[in-house]
Amino acid sequence: MNAYSGLERRFARLDAIGDAAGILGWDSQTLMPDGAADGRADQLATLRGLAHEILTAPETADALSAAGEQGLDPWQAENLAEMRRVHAHAASVPGDLVEASSRATSKAEMVWREARAQSDFGLLLPHLSEVLRLQREIGAIKGAALGLGTYDALLDEYDPGMRRATIDPLFAELRTRLPGLVAAARERQAGEPAPLPLDGPFPVDAQKRIGLALMRALGFDFTRGRLDISLHPFCGGATDDVRITTRYDEADFGRALMGVLHETGHALYEQGRPAAWRNQPVGKARGMSLHESQSLIVEMQACRSREFFAFLAPLVRAEFGRDGAAFTAENLHRLHTRVEPGFIRVDADEATYPAHILLRYDLESALIAGDLALADLPGAFNDGMRRLLGLTVPNDRLGCLQDIHWPSGAWGYFPTYTLGAMAAAQLFAAAKRAEPGILPGLATGDFAPLRGWLRTHVHEHGSRLPTDTLLERATGSPLGTEAYLAHLEARYGRPTAE
Amino acid sequence: MNAYSGLERRFARLDAIGDAAGILGWDSQTLMPDGAADGRADQLATLRGLAHEILTAPETADALSAAGEQGLDPWQAENLAEMRRVHAHAASVPGDLVEASSRATSKAEMVWREARAQSDFGLLLPHLSEVLRLQREIGAIKGAALGLGTYDALLDEYDPGMRRATIDPLFAELRTRLPGLVAAARERQAGEPAPLPLDGPFPVDAQKRIGLALMRALGFDFTRGRLDISLHPFCGGATDDVRITTRYDEADFGRALMGVLHETGHALYEQGRPAAWRNQPVGKARGMSLHESQSLIVEMQACRSREFFAFLAPLVRAEFGRDGAAFTAENLHRLHTRVEPGFIRVDADEATYPAHILLRYDLESALIAGDLALADLPGAFNDGMRRLLGLTVPNDRLGCLQDIHWPSGAWGYFPTYTLGAMAAAQLFAAAKRAEPGILPGLATGDFAPLRGWLRTHVHEHGSRLPTDTLLERATGSPLGTEAYLAHLEARYGRPTAE
Repeated sequence: MNAYSGLERRFARLDAIGDAAGILGWDSQTLMPDGAADGRADQLATLRGLAHEILTAPETADALSAAGEQGLDPWQAENLAEMRRVHAHAASVPGDLVEASSRATSKAEMVWREARAQSDFGLLLPHLSEVLRLQREIGAIKGAALGLGTYDALLDEYDPGMRRATIDPLFAELRTRLPGLVAAARERQAGEPAPLPLDGPFPVDAQKRIGLALMRALGFDFTRGRLDISLHPFCGGATDDVRITTRYDEADFGRALMGVLHETGHALYEQGRPAAWRNQPVGKARGMSLHESQSLIVEMQACRSREFFAFLAPLVRAEFGRDGAAFTAENLHRLHTRVEPGFIRVDADEATYPAHILLRYDLESALIAGDLALADLPGAFNDGMRRLLGLTVPNDRLGCLQDIHWPSGAWGYFPTYTLGAMAAAQLFAAAKRAEPGILPGLATGDFAPLRGWLRTHVHEHGSRLPTDTLLERATGSPLGTEAYLAHLEARYGRPTAE
Repeated sequence: MNAYSGLERRFARLDAIGDAAGILGWDSQTLMPDGAADGRADQLATLRGLAHEILTAPETADALSAAGEQGLDPWQAENLAEMRRVHAHAASVPGDLVEASSRATSKAEMVWREARAQSDFGLLLPHLSEVLRLQREIGAIKGAALGLGTYDALLDEYDPGMRRATIDPLFAELRTRLPGLVAAARERQAGEPAPLPLDGPFPVDAQKRIGLALMRALGFDFTRGRLDISLHPFCGGATDDVRITTRYDEADFGRALMGVLHETGHALYEQGRPAAWRNQPVGKARGMSLHESQSLIVEMQACRSREFFAFLAPLVRAEFGRDGAAFTAENLHRLHTRVEPGFIRVDADEATYPAHILLRYDLESALIAGDLALADLPGAFNDGMRRLLGLTVPNDRLGCLQDIHWPSGAWGYFPTYTLGAMAAAQLFAAAKRAEPGILPGLATGDFAPLRGWLRTHVHEHGSRLPTDTLLERATGSPLGTEAYLAHLEARYGRPTAE
């Protein structure tokens, strides 16, 4: 118990450093003046270096070996197991490899911005090649330490316990079922009049008021968080200081609004983590798939329902002082549930989004395995877009250069988006079965029944349960495609769509 | 040279931690949601603890002993001397005493807010007593290590090299001269019609635009800094990320405006520090007296001149869309150079401000020396206010409870305000002699001549010179009262006041 107590203090200290870095990272993307970028990079590198030193210090390893499970309650025991997992990930990789990777990704991210602007993959190639080389090395070393293949070792950092062997059959079902579903949706749409366009401008102030009203309705705790503006929406900050962002376009209020809803879903998970364990590994969110499920359950499951638009439409009309057929709940719902294949992942609708992920998963798997040469990535990407979505990519800016993940070293991250979408559908279906008040609540802006169910079945567990155990207890089954496909079918597949 | 290089890396790391804490501290006072306060305190305590550990690690002491001056250029040699000074301050105080003091001041600050609100010194007494006890202990330990008396050891942290033996004769001259000067000013005022009041409201947006315009005119670099809002104006943030704040009152634009000018003076010092040494001890600002001189040279010397109001008045009239006799340069200048004894230090005019400092210096000297019992502080404070300013303090909220300095452990800080005011007058007089374009420039918002002189004679020296050497080189004499009293006499003492 003594070694364990020391570990709790040590991990609380690591958490404080991580929280400090979280606020600094938020500031970098929201308020920081340009000239401060180099200094901020130094600050973050210093904090990460200190955290790595504390985590991989011999005293940490000694305490982890000395600490025994006897005398620990279930949360403490699971906390110790999480400490060991976090430690294994960090300690297996030598410090100079961590540093080399950090330098390579900083450089590659910078070049990527330029390469994307110029649509010039050749410019990025040598830098991305170095990032990939180091990711393969890190994955191999971690894999050896954790008893995993290289890709699984990388994936495990984002989604603990998730494996290719789980993903492959799930994604195979999506590959089979989605093309027909998308075709049916488009056929149905073609037979109907197009939804009416929304003519702006939509003042930023009013958009912000709507966003704040929705956050309040969803139960965001403003005493422990904020809403601000950044180029790319995100949920960041620190424990008890959860900061989400969006960006505003006066010609189109939908993007800011859906961004707020998505990030509020993430924020509710962060704000709902078990209070007593907030600064310990077991009190953290379980992984990126489950995190994404919480953003999508709000944005896609709840807030693209017909019920929600019955609540939203009057709010929109009042705030913008607009009226008429374009601003009915029906038209707003149709605008926000349109299926239309496109080049850009982040702009994709719910039905075509998985194709973007399947493609990236295949490509990064092949690149990590050494089955695809990096120089052949643009061609392979464009082949995949033709095959999966029937689109001819006109240039790499709209193709393999669109995402920051690979240059920034986030290999093994992409699948969590679609795993999260599947989990969201499964959890929402279970929640609706358990709480008949959820759907009618959405129509009046009463999210309490949904939020309450998520608190109890997801948020309050922190990292105490493996993702699949949590899903089984909450929904009756491990992660599967059934609820997800049923949801897509119901919303997009039939003429009398939900 | 090897030991020295290692020290540069070590102190750069300390600087990055300090900068991270600087941004987090800024955030705490500007944007942080209330519920995040405990977490933020943990983050800051963790960063401070890590910095203290690095600074007082045996390796740091060993390197400081091993490093020799040979082979070092003058900046490096002075950097090494500064490292030794910083280290001596930190290393002499045991970690548990630092921690006890940190806990005691956190507690006392919290109780102080309540005690001030209730005007109840008894509530604060036990907590302030503990802070004082620890400050005396810290001062005694540091004093023994540095060969200084207790008060001097505390003072040395805020103003390196400053001593009671220097302050006492300077303050004695002020004690002699100021009462007559204040009386003369008030007599003169009594014989003139009162300045016309400014009737608001003055919208915050317009106040902010004026503040930003003045910052631009002064040469604030917005690529490396920001202006925001906080309850108490301050200049904080990090190297290359200097963040100043003010607060707005729609009934009175003068306070926000003067706050912006004051903090911009501090910011110009920070932004003008020697670029090559920004993250090393020798590249830091020299001390709080010199820092205050830079805020006051802008706020009081330059921006309460008649010339400046010729520039400001049209800006104010245009932004607020106002006109008439109250908004002339003459009337605005008279409003902002009014002498009127009052209870609150931070609201005091330039001529009565030193009395507040003389009082606090006497009291904290006596408390540290053990010549005054803390329980007798309110009485002694009120006696002093009667003697120095002829005012009868009605309660402790308007008396000895008004400032946060003592509860927050900043003993030895107060004299730097008036030492800074003296240095500001001395520097401004020298600058005007050297650069005849300075005063005429103020009338057109051209601060370049003043800023250029300050860059060369103050900012770019960082901590390379002792304060008195810097002042001698810049002005021809060490710190004295002559220029200061001449300035006050010229502005307030005569009917044809500047």
